[in-house]
Amino acid sequence: MGNKELRISPSVIRRLPVYLRLVQELKELSIATISSQEMGDRLDLNPAQIRKDLASFGEFGRKGVGYNVAYLDWKLRQILNLDRQINVALIGAGHLGIALSNYARFQSERIKITAVFDRDPQKIGQKVGSLTVADAQDLPLYRQKYNLQMGIIAVPASAAQEVCDELVAAGIKVILNFAPANLRIPKGVHLRNTDVTTELQALAYYLENE
Amino acid sequence: MGNKELRISPSVIRRLPVYLRLVQELKELSIATISSQEMGDRLDLNPAQIRKDLASFGEFGRKGVGYNVAYLDWKLRQILNLDRQINVALIGAGHLGIALSNYARFQSERIKITAVFDRDPQKIGQKVGSLTVADAQDLPLYRQKYNLQMGIIAVPASAAQEVCDELVAAGIKVILNFAPANLRIPKGVHLRNTDVTTELQALAYYLENE
Repeated sequence: MGNKELRISPSVIRRLPVYLRLVQELKELSIATISSQEMGDRLDLNPAQIRKDLASFGEFGRKGVGYNVAYLDWKLRQILNLDRQINVALIGAGHLGIALSNYARFQSERIKITAVFDRDPQKIGQKVGSLTVADAQDLPLYRQKYNLQMGIIAVPASAAQEVCDELVAAGIKVILNFAPANLRIPKGVHLRNTDVTTELQALAYYLENE
Repeated sequence: MGNKELRISPSVIRRLPVYLRLVQELKELSIATISSQEMGDRLDLNPAQIRKDLASFGEFGRKGVGYNVAYLDWKLRQILNLDRQINVALIGAGHLGIALSNYARFQSERIKITAVFDRDPQKIGQKVGSLTVADAQDLPLYRQKYNLQMGIIAVPASAAQEVCDELVAAGIKVILNFAPANLRIPKGVHLRNTDVTTELQALAYYLENE
């Protein structure tokens, strides 16, 4: 596991894809090197923070020269395991599931929704993009056949814990949850919740009182 | 604006809805008081962090007694401006937009999608739940008529900056963006990006190398 043992904080990890996206933009602009100062300007982040984040993974900037964009791209992909294809199981073939599976950018980022599942007999067998909705109870089979490594939960809150348990039982240890529910997970499983309600409620703080 | 002048950090603000959700669960269980220790256990957060977060908004816990759940509920809603209805403009009536507008929990949380917009003539006039998709160019009219205060961007990345500019021009200063794009906003506008790709890329870090 190498660098995992250093216990990098989740907030550092969450900034790495932001750096990676900037690096893609720089590559498209044929920019070969960039300073932490310029990265900070472009991302509205403190350059010292960026240097510290990247230094967690070894020395790969040079003082006065900055970061080599191509190397940064390679290194960030290596750290994030994006140097190979990652197969994702999507559970829930409702509007959210369809929206997620249509998300074209996944493909180019090596993260690919490889299988879509639902429990609803009316949805099983239907096409979602190029995929056919499978029966959720066949998850363990698909897990092995397609080397599914990540799960996305896109079901109603009432079904989310059960789906989460099934993902974990099938051996999927990295899960992104869209349902507004506090899910219980065993040790060793990584769960990230993206709850739209929570996002909107936090944003509401910034409304001006009228 | 009162407490806004204290410049509470965004990471504190983002935890408040998590506390609010726990408070709802406690109310349903008829639990009248809770200690920061117990909140920490239930949320997998450090109790000292919880006490510090809440103390940013005044003294409302009592040593040895804990927090009064009903008061915490009232106070958190007040801080987050959730003591009144907040009207949201949703831009984009694709699958993601439909999924968002179906999100029943918004209603009970006082945050309500009041208008849905699109540019596609085939979508304008269609029903999304109880709403009729309006022409995006009528946003300023609707903004006034329905007191729209927040915007959700659920359009493809290529259209996101234009939509963002239109929201800002219409006077909407609090925006949640689902498009995978780095949007430019003027000072005084609060933008939060929820990019699924970024979430998945950060999660990929936790995959075990095989």
